[in-house]
Amino acid sequence: MDLPDRADREAILKIHARKKPLAEDVNIVVIAERTPGFSGADLYSLMNEGAILAARENRKKVSQFDLVRSIEKVMLGPERKSHLLSDREKKVTAYHEGGHALVGSVLPKADPVHKVSIIARGRSGGYTLSIPLEETRMQTKGEFLDDIAMSLGGYAAEKMIFGDITTGPSNDLQVATNLARAMVTRWGMCDEIGPLALESDGGRTIGGGSPVSGEMSEQVHAQVNVEVKKIMEHALSRATKVLTDHRAALDAIADKLCKVETLEQPEYEEIIKAHGIKLKKKEDIVSKIAKE
Amino acid sequence: MDLPDRADREAILKIHARKKPLAEDVNIVVIAERTPGFSGADLYSLMNEGAILAARENRKKVSQFDLVRSIEKVMLGPERKSHLLSDREKKVTAYHEGGHALVGSVLPKADPVHKVSIIARGRSGGYTLSIPLEETRMQTKGEFLDDIAMSLGGYAAEKMIFGDITTGPSNDLQVATNLARAMVTRWGMCDEIGPLALESDGGRTIGGGSPVSGEMSEQVHAQVNVEVKKIMEHALSRATKVLTDHRAALDAIADKLCKVETLEQPEYEEIIKAHGIKLKKKEDIVSKIAKE
Amino acid sequence: MDLPDRADREAILKIHARKKPLAEDVNIVVIAERTPGFSGADLYSLMNEGAILAARENRKKVSQFDLVRSIEKVMLGPERKSHLLSDREKKVTAYHEGGHALVGSVLPKADPVHKVSIIARGRSGGYTLSIPLEETRMQTKGEFLDDIAMSLGGYAAEKMIFGDITTGPSNDLQVATNLARAMVTRWGMCDEIGPLALESDGGRTIGGGSPVSGEMSEQVHAQVNVEVKKIMEHALSRATKVLTDHRAALDAIADKLCKVETLEQPEYEEIIKAHGIKLKKKEDIVSKIAKE
Amino acid sequence: MDLPDRADREAILKIHARKKPLAEDVNIVVIAERTPGFSGADLYSLMNEGAILAARENRKKVSQFDLVRSIEKVMLGPERKSHLLSDREKKVTAYHEGGHALVGSVLPKADPVHKVSIIARGRSGGYTLSIPLEETRMQTKGEFLDDIAMSLGGYAAEKMIFGDITTGPSNDLQVATNLARAMVTRWGMCDEIGPLALESDGGRTIGGGSPVSGEMSEQVHAQVNVEVKKIMEHALSRATKVLTDHRAALDAIADKLCKVETLEQPEYEEIIKAHGIKLKKKEDIVSKIAKE
Amino acid sequence: MDLPDRADREAILKIHARKKPLAEDVNIVVIAERTPGFSGADLYSLMNEGAILAARENRKKVSQFDLVRSIEKVMLGPERKSHLLSDREKKVTAYHEGGHALVGSVLPKADPVHKVSIIARGRSGGYTLSIPLEETRMQTKGEFLDDIAMSLGGYAAEKMIFGDITTGPSNDLQVATNLARAMVTRWGMCDEIGPLALESDGGRTIGGGSPVSGEMSEQVHAQVNVEVKKIMEHALSRATKVLTDHRAALDAIADKLCKVETLEQPEYEEIIKAHGIKLKKKEDIVSKIAKE
Amino acid sequence: MDLPDRADREAILKIHARKKPLAEDVNIVVIAERTPGFSGADLYSLMNEGAILAARENRKKVSQFDLVRSIEKVMLGPERKSHLLSDREKKVTAYHEGGHALVGSVLPKADPVHKVSIIARGRSGGYTLSIPLEETRMQTKGEFLDDIAMSLGGYAAEKMIFGDITTGPSNDLQVATNLARAMVTRWGMCDEIGPLALESDGGRTIGGGSPVSGEMSEQVHAQVNVEVKKIMEHALSRATKVLTDHRAALDAIADKLCKVETLEQPEYEEIIKAHGIKLKKKEDIVSKIAKE
Repeated sequence: MDLPDRADREAILKIHARKKPLAEDVNIVVIAERTPGFSGADLYSLMNEGAILAARENRKKVSQFDLVRSIEKVMLGPERKSHLLSDREKKVTAYHEGGHALVGSVLPKADPVHKVSIIARGRSGGYTLSIPLEETRMQTKGEFLDDIAMSLGGYAAEKMIFGDITTGPSNDLQVATNLARAMVTRWGMCDEIGPLALESDGGRTIGGGSPVSGEMSEQVHAQVNVEVKKIMEHALSRATKVLTDHRAALDAIADKLCKVETLEQPEYEEIIKAHGIKLKKKEDIVSKIAKE
Repeated sequence: MDLPDRADREAILKIHARKKPLAEDVNIVVIAERTPGFSGADLYSLMNEGAILAARENRKKVSQFDLVRSIEKVMLGPERKSHLLSDREKKVTAYHEGGHALVGSVLPKADPVHKVSIIARGRSGGYTLSIPLEETRMQTKGEFLDDIAMSLGGYAAEKMIFGDITTGPSNDLQVATNLARAMVTRWGMCDEIGPLALESDGGRTIGGGSPVSGEMSEQVHAQVNVEVKKIMEHALSRATKVLTDHRAALDAIADKLCKVETLEQPEYEEIIKAHGIKLKKKEDIVSKIAKE
Repeated sequence: MDLPDRADREAILKIHARKKPLAEDVNIVVIAERTPGFSGADLYSLMNEGAILAARENRKKVSQFDLVRSIEKVMLGPERKSHLLSDREKKVTAYHEGGHALVGSVLPKADPVHKVSIIARGRSGGYTLSIPLEETRMQTKGEFLDDIAMSLGGYAAEKMIFGDITTGPSNDLQVATNLARAMVTRWGMCDEIGPLALESDGGRTIGGGSPVSGEMSEQVHAQVNVEVKKIMEHALSRATKVLTDHRAALDAIADKLCKVETLEQPEYEEIIKAHGIKLKKKEDIVSKIAKE
Repeated sequence: MDLPDRADREAILKIHARKKPLAEDVNIVVIAERTPGFSGADLYSLMNEGAILAARENRKKVSQFDLVRSIEKVMLGPERKSHLLSDREKKVTAYHEGGHALVGSVLPKADPVHKVSIIARGRSGGYTLSIPLEETRMQTKGEFLDDIAMSLGGYAAEKMIFGDITTGPSNDLQVATNLARAMVTRWGMCDEIGPLALESDGGRTIGGGSPVSGEMSEQVHAQVNVEVKKIMEHALSRATKVLTDHRAALDAIADKLCKVETLEQPEYEEIIKAHGIKLKKKEDIVSKIAKE
Repeated sequence: MDLPDRADREAILKIHARKKPLAEDVNIVVIAERTPGFSGADLYSLMNEGAILAARENRKKVSQFDLVRSIEKVMLGPERKSHLLSDREKKVTAYHEGGHALVGSVLPKADPVHKVSIIARGRSGGYTLSIPLEETRMQTKGEFLDDIAMSLGGYAAEKMIFGDITTGPSNDLQVATNLARAMVTRWGMCDEIGPLALESDGGRTIGGGSPVSGEMSEQVHAQVNVEVKKIMEHALSRATKVLTDHRAALDAIADKLCKVETLEQPEYEEIIKAHGIKLKKKEDIVSKIAKE
Repeated sequence: MDLPDRADREAILKIHARKKPLAEDVNIVVIAERTPGFSGADLYSLMNEGAILAARENRKKVSQFDLVRSIEKVMLGPERKSHLLSDREKKVTAYHEGGHALVGSVLPKADPVHKVSIIARGRSGGYTLSIPLEETRMQTKGEFLDDIAMSLGGYAAEKMIFGDITTGPSNDLQVATNLARAMVTRWGMCDEIGPLALESDGGRTIGGGSPVSGEMSEQVHAQVNVEVKKIMEHALSRATKVLTDHRAALDAIADKLCKVETLEQPEYEEIIKAHGIKLKKKEDIVSKIAKE
C-alpha cells in the first residue's frame, strides 16, 4: 500500500477538518509535516482524537495543541498511567531513551529528535520521537547505518551504564536487524554480497519486476548472516563511542528525564547544545550532496 | 495479551470483592502483590475459590487466609491427594524442591522463596514458589542467569544426591532452555551472537516492529545452539556449586520436607538463616544499580 | 491425558464392580496393582471382559481368574488362534521372548517378569509381561537404561542363537529408540548433550512451561543421533552379555516355552532360581536410595 | 491391515465356494497355500474369476485349473494380448525373467520358482512367480538378502547379456531399494547403523509402540544411503555371479521362453535340474535352524 | 495412464473412422504407426481434424494427406502464421532445427527424422519430428544417451554457428535433463549411483511395488547432480562432434530450411545421403542384439 | 499466457479503433510497434485512454499524440503529480535514470533508449524507456548480459556520483537478478553449470516438456549462487566502466533532466551524439550474425 506524501496528507486533513470547528491557531501544514507514514485512516483518527480532547476540556474548538497531542496518541497508543515506575525502572528507562536520543543527535544522517519520554505508551516503556528534516521517498545506505546505530543507542546505554541488559531493547533489535538484512539482501548495500536481490520486497515490486525467484543456498545464507552481524556490531560500536564521548550529555538527559519524565524538542536541544552538540539543519542535507 | 500490573490487579480485585462478604483481616493490596502474572479471569477465580473455602467451613466471611490458599490453587491446580508418595519418591522430591529453593535463596538476583512443598499439584510432583521483591516489566540478563540456575536446582540436586536423574526435571529443562534461547536470539544477551534479533518475539512486537524476517542459516543456528548450551551448563555448574557449598542446608530442607511436606516462608527462612544464608531485601535491588 | 494411579484405579474398579456379581475370591486391590497405565475406559473394558468369560462358562459370578485373564486381553488384544506356528517359528519366538525375560530378570533396575508367552496376540508373535514392584510416576536414567536393554533382549537372543535376525524385533527397536531419544533430548540424561530440552514433551508441559521453541541445528541433531546410537549399542552389548553369561537359563526358558507356550510367574521364577538368578524384592528399591 | 493367513484363507475360500458348483478335482487347501498376501476381497475375486472361466467354456462346474489360472489373473492383472512382442523384446524379456528365476533357484534362502513367463500382464513385460515353501510371518535378514539379489536378477542378466539396460527393471529397483532401506532403518539388520529404528513402520506399530519420533540428521541420513547402496551392490554382484556360474542354464531358460513363452514349475525345474541345480525342499528350512 | 499401442490405435482409429467418408487412399495402419504416444482422445481429435480439412476444401472424402497433416496439428498445435520471422530468426531457427535433425540422423540409436520445419507451431519456433523404426515399450540406456544428444543438437548448433545462445533451447534442456535424471535415479543406468531407485516413478509402479520411501540425503543428492551433469555434458560434446564432423551437411540443411521452411522425409534424406550419411533401417536394431 | 506479436497487436488495435473517431495523423502500425509485451486488455485500455485525453481537451478526434501518451500511462501507471521532488531527490534521480540510459546507449546489444524521465510514475521515482529495434521472440545470452548491465546503470551511477546508494535501485536489482538466475538455471547460458535445466520455466513448457523434476542439491545451489553473482558483478563493472568513460555525457543528461524533467528520443539522442556515442541501427543486428 502506497502511503500519502506530505501534500496528500495536507489535502486529506483538510477534508476531515471541514466538519470540525478549528481554533485559529491550527496550522494544517505543520500537522501534515509531522505525520510522515500516516495512512488516510490514521489521519482520520488524528482529527477525531483532537476533537475528543477539546470536548473533554469543554472547549468548542480544536486547538493546534490538541492535534499535536493526538499525533502521538495515534502513533504510540494511549499513555499507560497505571504502571508506576520504580526508581530503578525510571533510571534504566531514562538512560535507554537518552541513549537513542543522543546517538540520533550526534550521528550526522539520523533524523533530529523531537521528543524523549519515559512515560510508557502502548507496550513500550518509553519513547524517542525523531522526524526527518525533509520528507523523502529516498533513503541512503549512510542514513540506514545511522538509523541502525540510533536503534541500538538504548541497548548500548544500558550495557555501558549498568553493565547488564534488560529485555527493553527487544523491539529495537528486531527493527534494526530487519533493516540491516534488507540492506544486505534487497538493496545491494553490502559490497561482499554485491548488487544482487536475494530476497523479495514483498508487495513493493513495480510492474514487470517479479518477486525474487529461488531460495538462497545455505552458503549464501551464511554469508548474509555474517554481513548482517557485521553491520549490527559496527553500529553498536559507533553508538557506544557516541555515548562514551558524550557521557556528560547522556547523564544530563537521563537526570532530567527522571525528574520531568518528558522532554520536548526545545528543552532537549538546550541540553545537547549546552554539551556542545550541533543542531541539524536542512542545509546539511543539501551540502552532503553538494560536496560530491 | 497485556497482563494487568499491580495497580490494575488491585482495582480488579476490588471490583470482584464487592459482592463477597470479606473478613476484617483481608488486605487486597497484599493479594495484588502476590499475584503477578494473573489475568483478569484468574483474579475472578481467586475470589470465587476464596468464597468456596469459607462456605465449606461454614464461615460467612472470606478471610485473608482463604484468599492466600486460593492463589496457589489457581496457579498450580488443586492438590492431588490420591497419589500416595512412597518413601523413595518423597525423598527424591524433597531434594529436588530443596535444590530449587536453596539455589534461589543463595543466588543474588533470583526471586526470594515463599513456599516449598512436596505435595503434588496438577501434574507436578512438588513445587517451589518464588515471588519478586518488586514487580517490574524489566528483567535483566543477570536475573535470567540466576533464574535458569534456580530452574536447574532440582536437576542438580538429584544428580548430586542420588547419582541418577528422574524425569521430574523435564519441565524445568524446557522452561530454562527456552529462556536461554530467548536470551541468545531475541534479547541480544550473548556477546558471541551480538546485538541481533534472530527470532521473533511472536505477538510482542510494538507498532512498526515487524517480526524478524528470514530463517537463520545452518551456521548461525549451530552457533546459537552452542551458546544456549554454554548458558545451560554454566547455570548447572553454578547450581551445583551452591548445593555443594550449602549441603547441610539442603539436607535440612529435604529432611524437614519429608516430615512436614510443605514449608511456608517463615519456616523455610528459619532453616536457611540457621545455615548462614542471608535473606533478600528490597534495598538489594536498588543498591545493585546504585553501585554502578 | 493424566492416567489414574493405583488408588484411582481401585476406586474406578469398585464403581464398575457394583453392577457385577463378584465371586468371593475377587481382590480388587490386586487388580488395581496389576493395571498400571490403564485408562478409565480400559478398566471398564476389563470388568466387562471378566463378566463375558464367566457367562461363557455358565458361571454366575465373576472370579478373580476371569479378571486376571481379562487384563491381558485388554492389554494385548485377543489371542490369535488361527495362525499355527511352525517348529521354526516356535523356536525363534521362544528364544526371542526368553531373551526379553532373562535380561529383565538379571538387570537390577528392570521390572520383574510376570509372564512369558509365545502365543500370538494382536499383531505380536509372543509377549513378555513385566510389572513394576512399586507404582511410581518417577523413573530414573538407570531404570531407562535397563528397560532399553530388556527391549533389545529379543533382538540379542535371535542374533546370538541363530546368527540371523527376523523382523520380529521391529517394534522393540521403535520403543527403545524413542526412549533413548527422549533421554537425550528431553530429560537431560546424556552428559554430552547436557541439561537441555531439545525436543518438546508434546502434551506433557506444565502450566507456564511452553513447548520447546526452535528446531535443532543440523550439528546438534547429528550429535543427538550419535548419543542415541551409543545408548542403544551399549544396551545391546549389556543384553548380549546377560544372555551369554546365562545361556543355560535361556535355553531352559526357550525349551519350556516350546513345550508349554506360556510361563506364568511361578513357573518362570522356578527356572531362573534354578539357574542361580535372584528374584527382585521391594526392599531393593529402597536400598538403592539408602546406599546413597 | 492384517492379511489372513493360510488357515484364514482356507476358511474364507470355503465360504465363497458354497454358492459355486465345484468340480471334484478342486482342492481348496492347495489354493489357500498358493495365495499368500491375498486379502479377503482378493479371494472373493479369485472364486468369481474361476466361475467366469468355466462359464466361458460352457462348463457347469469350476475346476481346479480354473482357480489356478484365476490366482495369476488376480495377482498380475489380465494378460495383455494386443501388444505383439518383437524378436528383440522377446529376447530381452526372456533373459530378464530368466535372470530372476535362476538367481531365485540358486540362492538358498530365496523362495522356489513356480512359473516364469514373457507374456505381458498388467503393466509388466513378463513375470516370475515364486512362492514360499512354508508360510510364515517371520522373515530373516538372510532371506531378505537373497530376495534382493533375486529382484536384481533381471537387471543383472540384461547388463551381462546385452551390455545395455532397459527401463524394464525400474519396478524391481524400487521394490529392492525399499526392502534394503527397511533393513537398515527399521529392522536393525545393518551392523554399521546398529539396533536402532530410524524410520517408522507406518501402520505396523503394536499397542504402546509409538511411531519413531524425529527425523534423521543429515549425517545419519547419508550413512543410511551408504549402507543401502552397499546392500544393493553386494546383491547385484551375487546375482551376477550366479548368472555367470550358470550361464548355460540361463541361455537354456531364455531360449525355451522365447519358444513357449511360459514355463510352468515342472518344465522349469527340468531345465535347472539338467544343469545341476538342486531343487529346494521344506527340510532345508528346518535344517537351517538345526545347524545352529 | 497406459497409452494404447500400435494395435490398440489401429482398432480405435477404425472405430472413429466408421462415421467418416474415407477416400480410397486412406491407410489406417500407416496412421496407427505414425501416432505412438497418442491417447484415445488424441486419435479422436485426429479423425475430426482430417474431416475439417476435407470440408474446408469442399471435398466429400477424407484423404490420407488430410490425416497425415492432422497428426502434426494434434501433436504440435496449429501453425502460427501471424508471426513473421525476420531473416535473423529464420537463420537461427534453421540451424537449431538442423542441429537436432543431423545429430538424430548420425547417432545410431536415435530415431530416424521424418520432418524438419522452421514454421512456428504452438509455442515452439520450429520442430523436428522423429519416429521410431519399431514401436516398443522397451528403451535402453544407449538409446536414451542418443536421445539426449539429439535434444541438445539445437543448443550445440547455436553455440557453434553463432557463438551465442538464445532462449530457444529452454524446453530441450528441460526434457533432456529430466531424462538424464531418471536414468540416474530411477532406472539404475549410472554405475556410480548403482542399481538403486532413489526417486519414484510416480504412477508407474506395478502391483506390490510401493513408491520409493524416503528422501535422498544431501550427499547422495549432490552425487546425483554430478552424474546428471556428466551425462548432459557428454551428450553435448557428442552432439557438437557430430555437427563439426558434418558441418557441410548442417549448412545444407539450414540453407534449404531458410528457403523452403519445411523439409519432408524424402527431401531431408536426399540432403544427408548427399553428404555421405547412412539412412537407418529396421535390420540395424536386430543386429544390435545379434552381435551380442 | 501467450502475448500477441506485432501483427496481432495491429489487428487488435484496429478492432478497438473502429468505434473511436481517429484523427488523420493516427498511424496504428507505429502504435503496434511501440507496444511489445502488451496484452489484448492493455491495448484496449490504451485506446480508451487516448479517447479520454482527447475528450478532456474538447477535441472530437483521437490524435496520434494522444495514443503515444497513453502507451506510457498504461505501461507505467499515471504520473504522480503530488510528490514534489526536492533538489536532492531530483539530482539523485537524474543521475540514476541517466545511468540506465547511457549504459543502454553504449552497450551494443541493449535496446535503444526512447525516453528518459525523472517524473515519478506509479511507484517508481523516474523511468527510462527502451524499445527493441526489431521485435523478436528470440533473445540471446549477449543481449541479456547487456540488459543486466543496463538495469544496473542506475545503481552504478548513484555509487559513482554520490558514493552512497539509495533504495531506488531495489526493483532494478530484482529484475536483473531474476534474469541472471534464469540464464544460469533455465537457459544453459553459463558454462560452469552446463547445458542443464535446474529450474522450471513455470508455465512456459511446451507439449511433452514436463517441468524440471527434483530440487537442486545444496552443492549445486551454492554453485548457482556463485555464478549468478559473477554475472551481476561483471555487469556492474561494465556499467561502471561505461559511465566513467562517458562521464561528461552522464553529467549532461543529468543536468538536462534536472531542468526539463523528461527527455524524448530526439533530445536525448542529440546529447549522446554530441558526446560521440553512435546511434543504433537495424543493420547492426543483421551484421552481428553476418560476421559469423
